[in-house]
Amino acid sequence: MSAIPNVLAERYASKAIRDIWSAEGRIVLEREFWIAVMKAQKELGLDIPQEAIDAYESVKDQVNLTAIMERERVTRHDVKARIEEFCDLAGHQHIHKGMTSRDLTENVEQLQVYRSLLIQRDKTIASLAKMSQRAEQWHDLVITARTHNVAAQPTTFGKRIAMFGEELLGGLSALNHLIATYTVRGLKGAVGTQMDQISLFDGDAAKVADLEAKICAHLGIPEVFDNVGQVYPRSLDLRTVSILTDLASGPSSFSTTLRLMAGHETASEGFAKGQTGSSAMPHKMNSRSCERVNGFQTILTGYLTMATGLAGDQWNEGDVSCSVVRRVMLPDAFYACDGMFETFLTILNQMDAYPAVIEAENNHYLPFLMTTTIMMEAVKAGVGREAAHKAIKENAVATVNDLRAGSIKENDLLTRLAEDDRIPLSFEQLELLLDEGRKNAGSAYEQVKAFSKTVAAHTSAHPDAASYEPGSIL
Amino acid sequence: MSAIPNVLAERYASKAIRDIWSAEGRIVLEREFWIAVMKAQKELGLDIPQEAIDAYESVKDQVNLTAIMERERVTRHDVKARIEEFCDLAGHQHIHKGMTSRDLTENVEQLQVYRSLLIQRDKTIASLAKMSQRAEQWHDLVITARTHNVAAQPTTFGKRIAMFGEELLGGLSALNHLIATYTVRGLKGAVGTQMDQISLFDGDAAKVADLEAKICAHLGIPEVFDNVGQVYPRSLDLRTVSILTDLASGPSSFSTTLRLMAGHETASEGFAKGQTGSSAMPHKMNSRSCERVNGFQTILTGYLTMATGLAGDQWNEGDVSCSVVRRVMLPDAFYACDGMFETFLTILNQMDAYPAVIEAENNHYLPFLMTTTIMMEAVKAGVGREAAHKAIKENAVATVNDLRAGSIKENDLLTRLAEDDRIPLSFEQLELLLDEGRKNAGSAYEQVKAFSKTVAAHTSAHPDAASYEPGSIL
Amino acid sequence: MSAIPNVLAERYASKAIRDIWSAEGRIVLEREFWIAVMKAQKELGLDIPQEAIDAYESVKDQVNLTAIMERERVTRHDVKARIEEFCDLAGHQHIHKGMTSRDLTENVEQLQVYRSLLIQRDKTIASLAKMSQRAEQWHDLVITARTHNVAAQPTTFGKRIAMFGEELLGGLSALNHLIATYTVRGLKGAVGTQMDQISLFDGDAAKVADLEAKICAHLGIPEVFDNVGQVYPRSLDLRTVSILTDLASGPSSFSTTLRLMAGHETASEGFAKGQTGSSAMPHKMNSRSCERVNGFQTILTGYLTMATGLAGDQWNEGDVSCSVVRRVMLPDAFYACDGMFETFLTILNQMDAYPAVIEAENNHYLPFLMTTTIMMEAVKAGVGREAAHKAIKENAVATVNDLRAGSIKENDLLTRLAEDDRIPLSFEQLELLLDEGRKNAGSAYEQVKAFSKTVAAHTSAHPDAASYEPGSIL
Amino acid sequence: MSAIPNVLAERYASKAIRDIWSAEGRIVLEREFWIAVMKAQKELGLDIPQEAIDAYESVKDQVNLTAIMERERVTRHDVKARIEEFCDLAGHQHIHKGMTSRDLTENVEQLQVYRSLLIQRDKTIASLAKMSQRAEQWHDLVITARTHNVAAQPTTFGKRIAMFGEELLGGLSALNHLIATYTVRGLKGAVGTQMDQISLFDGDAAKVADLEAKICAHLGIPEVFDNVGQVYPRSLDLRTVSILTDLASGPSSFSTTLRLMAGHETASEGFAKGQTGSSAMPHKMNSRSCERVNGFQTILTGYLTMATGLAGDQWNEGDVSCSVVRRVMLPDAFYACDGMFETFLTILNQMDAYPAVIEAENNHYLPFLMTTTIMMEAVKAGVGREAAHKAIKENAVATVNDLRAGSIKENDLLTRLAEDDRIPLSFEQLELLLDEGRKNAGSAYEQVKAFSKTVAAHTSAHPDAASYEPGSIL
Repeated sequence: MSAIPNVLAERYASKAIRDIWSAEGRIVLEREFWIAVMKAQKELGLDIPQEAIDAYESVKDQVNLTAIMERERVTRHDVKARIEEFCDLAGHQHIHKGMTSRDLTENVEQLQVYRSLLIQRDKTIASLAKMSQRAEQWHDLVITARTHNVAAQPTTFGKRIAMFGEELLGGLSALNHLIATYTVRGLKGAVGTQMDQISLFDGDAAKVADLEAKICAHLGIPEVFDNVGQVYPRSLDLRTVSILTDLASGPSSFSTTLRLMAGHETASEGFAKGQTGSSAMPHKMNSRSCERVNGFQTILTGYLTMATGLAGDQWNEGDVSCSVVRRVMLPDAFYACDGMFETFLTILNQMDAYPAVIEAENNHYLPFLMTTTIMMEAVKAGVGREAAHKAIKENAVATVNDLRAGSIKENDLLTRLAEDDRIPLSFEQLELLLDEGRKNAGSAYEQVKAFSKTVAAHTSAHPDAASYEPGSIL
Repeated sequence: MSAIPNVLAERYASKAIRDIWSAEGRIVLEREFWIAVMKAQKELGLDIPQEAIDAYESVKDQVNLTAIMERERVTRHDVKARIEEFCDLAGHQHIHKGMTSRDLTENVEQLQVYRSLLIQRDKTIASLAKMSQRAEQWHDLVITARTHNVAAQPTTFGKRIAMFGEELLGGLSALNHLIATYTVRGLKGAVGTQMDQISLFDGDAAKVADLEAKICAHLGIPEVFDNVGQVYPRSLDLRTVSILTDLASGPSSFSTTLRLMAGHETASEGFAKGQTGSSAMPHKMNSRSCERVNGFQTILTGYLTMATGLAGDQWNEGDVSCSVVRRVMLPDAFYACDGMFETFLTILNQMDAYPAVIEAENNHYLPFLMTTTIMMEAVKAGVGREAAHKAIKENAVATVNDLRAGSIKENDLLTRLAEDDRIPLSFEQLELLLDEGRKNAGSAYEQVKAFSKTVAAHTSAHPDAASYEPGSIL
Repeated sequence: MSAIPNVLAERYASKAIRDIWSAEGRIVLEREFWIAVMKAQKELGLDIPQEAIDAYESVKDQVNLTAIMERERVTRHDVKARIEEFCDLAGHQHIHKGMTSRDLTENVEQLQVYRSLLIQRDKTIASLAKMSQRAEQWHDLVITARTHNVAAQPTTFGKRIAMFGEELLGGLSALNHLIATYTVRGLKGAVGTQMDQISLFDGDAAKVADLEAKICAHLGIPEVFDNVGQVYPRSLDLRTVSILTDLASGPSSFSTTLRLMAGHETASEGFAKGQTGSSAMPHKMNSRSCERVNGFQTILTGYLTMATGLAGDQWNEGDVSCSVVRRVMLPDAFYACDGMFETFLTILNQMDAYPAVIEAENNHYLPFLMTTTIMMEAVKAGVGREAAHKAIKENAVATVNDLRAGSIKENDLLTRLAEDDRIPLSFEQLELLLDEGRKNAGSAYEQVKAFSKTVAAHTSAHPDAASYEPGSIL
Repeated sequence: MSAIPNVLAERYASKAIRDIWSAEGRIVLEREFWIAVMKAQKELGLDIPQEAIDAYESVKDQVNLTAIMERERVTRHDVKARIEEFCDLAGHQHIHKGMTSRDLTENVEQLQVYRSLLIQRDKTIASLAKMSQRAEQWHDLVITARTHNVAAQPTTFGKRIAMFGEELLGGLSALNHLIATYTVRGLKGAVGTQMDQISLFDGDAAKVADLEAKICAHLGIPEVFDNVGQVYPRSLDLRTVSILTDLASGPSSFSTTLRLMAGHETASEGFAKGQTGSSAMPHKMNSRSCERVNGFQTILTGYLTMATGLAGDQWNEGDVSCSVVRRVMLPDAFYACDGMFETFLTILNQMDAYPAVIEAENNHYLPFLMTTTIMMEAVKAGVGREAAHKAIKENAVATVNDLRAGSIKENDLLTRLAEDDRIPLSFEQLELLLDEGRKNAGSAYEQVKAFSKTVAAHTSAHPDAASYEPGSIL
């Protein structure tokens, strides 16, 4: 039987994130960790021959998963199987001294998490860079803003994009804080007291502290816990998965809105070159990628629920009721978040707006959106406020009803008002008001500028990240 | 780069469930579905040559995933890629007539779900059979029941097992209802109106109804929807994943309780033959499998959250924002549930109780548990109720405090009461009361019998299921 | 300080459901339960004076929450506070004999759940009755069905409503199964062995079985557990809340779709008499109620997560880590579900469709939706299939692009095809094809009829439920 | 009918948090907001008479909920009802100028959230202060650390408490970051463009920016969004509720562990003065409060699921599908978190450890925990490593089996080893090794000191918070 692949990894995630979480990648990380521990132990006085260290280093990339699994079927202990395999390859028995399994696995898993967070940070910045470009591109393309999915007031397409971009900036802030404060478990032994390492160094706790500091330097993770049991606190995983879900929120709301716009044909996620929609219905440009972004957000909420099922449920110094959950939740949440960004970046590259359709929509709704302004002008021209309000409202409601009943096809509110004696404004005067309204999106452009400026601070700090381009998506 | 496997499928699920959800398995199901449609269409008058059908049948098991993926990278349409591959293999172009992609995928996915449900049903019955055996085995092994994790009253170990077994019976009832009413989407076309099949049969709706009936017979699913859009309602997936979570609840509570008992050494999940615990600490028998069952339950709650994110979120006749979610959620929820049952069945096979430790615990707590009975006897012997209550309470509290302070090592409440003039009962009389209490677990045995009887009805209806034995677990 | 009200109960739920879960309502249920136990104990031989029972009955409706809370602040035991209050009111001490707190609270809470389920069942049927009426009303109103939120094929508005109605039927089936198999804990004592009741009846287990049967008859719940601990299994609560979430799914998808239609002005949820939209923008008819239905669905998913946090987490015979959760989750989930139905029923009463706008949308898209039919006719008229396909596709794509670019305002595909020499069909012939297409919604009407028939079986079985009208909503 | 209270607010939350979220409290916050807007508008040149502002200020605390609700039943618009009430009380019509409802409600709700976060921050620090005291108190009380709920190695009770305390420190770091970066929506108008405020100031955008700055200063929230629609991004709510769940994780794991210890009678959550346990079973000290902390954690996971259902689901510039959800989720999540802290602080005040029982447990397990050390000593005394291992393992396994079989009552491994010729160590030598092991908890004390030092930095920065004492809990 052929293996069943992880669909999130294989269909959606990028190579960078797959490499971190692949079985092979993880085993190499573990072996590097063991070697770092040996080197540090040797420096601190343990009798470990240099040739043994060299031997381990020379075979560390020889990963044979089948051989390891055969060992595990005998020992029923995954770490022991990997110890034996590595030792047999090297022809020595010097790794894992004074260590318990969790000294290895917790630290290596945290390294996987930490490196994955850095990748997501880079893709967040890449997304913001593209959102900023799109926001600038359409900063003055006036569209009909909608609340309750109904036309409300004018805004610009650029501002709409900046709005979702600013949501993503919030996620980035939380992510950056997590990265800056990410804390690794360290070498703490079976129950967190470092007893076995201290025994190994004949009671010299200072040497054990030194050893741990060297290992943390090897890992490159900013902080180390003082007090843990067998495991690091699972609320750290909750914080991690929560932030991945957070990162998906801005892109997901953006994608939902683009799906709505596609329904009105005011914009679309676009197509790859050469791609056509349905062969039967050539007009059909389905928002497949936007829908997929929404799907990833839903997936992440599920992994977040798993994380909340582990946090706060530690018994004593810990156990492995979290084991199978974390084997699934951690890589799969990163695959999903990474796939989300790959898809979102592709949308940002390919999306398009249709100004003619947008203008038609604006024209259809603008007379309604300008009624307050018209009323104020009527008042200036000498009509009583209540009288003007009554006249405008009657005409507006009649126009709506006629449009819905089909007795008129275009919004003729201006004509009606021009013909209504109660409103002392000519059609030309009313049209002038409308023309001004057509361009009035308030502070929209200044808001876009503010967004671009904030994004620029991030992109100039991480120029490589900012210029990242997504791989080809399915 | 080697593929990243699905860890739930590869480490925990059984072959039966993997076969249903593997890429190869699914493609064969799809091809069988297409062939069934062709046969039915031919019977109903469409001009499809028998040799074409024969050709398709002869190649249906030739599944080349790499070739199909190459096609998908060109078409960016997974179903189209699979159509082309199958047609090229057969040398004909007769499948998928009048069908939309969802006519294929929805029905085949539902078939995967339905067959997976049947397998979980069987494993539920196997679990109940073993729980019933264990409950009978220990039906009169009196243990100290605990509420708030503190000793409360006597019960029997058999009754405790039956208690969690009865919880699982509740899940089985819900599962059986789902199986009996499981409803398939059928051949409904792009938006659910069957328009294209009706066109194909020149407007003959009766023939289309016939066609759908034949296809449902092929699938073997009990019900078919009348009204759907492009997709079947996603609340059906919610119902499915909810019941899988439900099924895990009894086993999970049982496993939690066994972990607690292992902490007191009154019982353990046991070991496989030849397995030892930690080599450093030979006494250590870790509840790894019980912890894993708890982990699977947590995993299932995450997939349930994904399901609730899809149900109630259909736009119009449907879209694919559910697609990536269902690709993950459906198979993975079944792998998790299946792995849970494999683990749970193994625990039921290997678990053990330690009567000597249990008896020591009973002896330690029994005097406390019998204070109400002692009071009633004192009253019969002529003491006032309040006076007896006061005397007993004083002695009991003093005993507890002395035990906690370490000034005594064994519960000597009986001695104290025998020596207290306010209680006119001798040590011998008190010991007699205790002896009776030691065996008094109320209706526990009748309750176990009732459980066994209910289980027997299920096992005799499904004898093969009842005798299922789990595979070897990691 | 004034009390903080439960917002779900006070703003959204109906009186019927509030009465079941109010503090007063619950205390009366408890007192009736105690009285039922006393009566049954007396019948089975316990010495309980009739005048005591009469005294309890005469005061059972005198509920003084403040007095009870004062007692609880002293005893720190809610049930004990309620025992003392009831006994002081009655002037007797005969309730709660041989009972533990959970003998009272579990059974009464299950009664609250059971009665609440019946109310939700009735409102489900009321909703289906109204959906069926609406589906019949618009069974032949052809609309443009959408997949991916993009025009796809014709369907009818009635069919669209029946589609979501059929989803709700699935929830009803699950709900009916739950109601029919709902199982009560019964009188099982502190750890589930009935030890104290058996002691009370001097070891006569048969009498205790009789007693429990009488109590179950009082409750009117169909089934009773054999094996429980202190509590009934919490997976029963999971099943309950899951089905409430399930019930919200059809209405929620319907509401989402109505929000989408409101964006296109093809339909709206309507308004209460006298209600206007925004005073500034009289055309604005916001889908507030539909949005609220979506909100209730989201709320229910949260309570479902709470339920999954309890199921599978029982320690031994039980504890109260579920207590605060169930105090919140159970009533609030029912308030939310009830508020959802009140809102949904109001929408069904007030909603409206706008045929003129619908027709305009159909006309806009129909030429695209008919391209396959046009191609088949061209082939019959002698053109090669590939030549016809190429010609049609070129014209269709050009039309789409011109529409989006604004160079045309109406879909003129028919004119283009009529003028294209490669397609030997006149404009009149093409229009004829379109006219047929305009009415072709495949099996839509038969599907609506099938839905109505299924609903009718439920409404005739529950005529009162079917005619339920919602209260006035905020 | 009497009102149905919010059970989380009334039974568990403190007055401080109830005051923020009560209907009265909110209305006062709104009125203060309106007044602040008026003052700022006046300063920037709008013609608002000072006497009007004075009039509003003089009536702002006159809150009549019944009157407001009566207005809402007419207008069906909650904000409009509150505008009318306030204006009628003041006898003026100057509030809400150029504002849309969300300009009021979003900002005021964010103020409620922000102030609630500050209260939770203070209670986190109070909890850490008490954890630090307890950790110091028991820094050298050696206990048997458990992994998989089975005895593993020695640690100290102080270290165990510090371990859960360090988890809470992680939550505090995330909370502090959220507080420092909390961002308010500001005065942005109906779709986020500030169009109406700009109109009000005759197109002077600079004045509107000034106005917003003044309002943010009034609120005292650190940051303001540039780009929003009608609403602020709901991922900010997700971040908020996620951190509340995070904060509950350390206390919840601590409580779970204390429940486990109570089962072994090594520690308990203690009792309030005068409180007894069950009257029937005076020894029974139930972990009611610990169970309740676990319950609150489960509740929070439910509100987090609600938050994930809103984040990423914004349509265009926003709607109110989040409205009913946020009315429930936001206050209830804060009530739950606050009730969790009140309960947890009470536990920390009242908890107790039982050194005699702890010592008995240590003695029972210590010989097993010291087997590696014994082996090393035997090797030093001249035995081969493998021979020593074999001898020790045989004796250890035999001891375990005899203990479980009941043939011995105390762990006699030392005697067996002393009598075994293969191990050249006397009973006295072995006892000496045990004595050293008994006190060996590795780095436990240094770890406790490190925890206390970190906590001290927080408590000295927030001395009032650190000295907070919980109210009396039910």
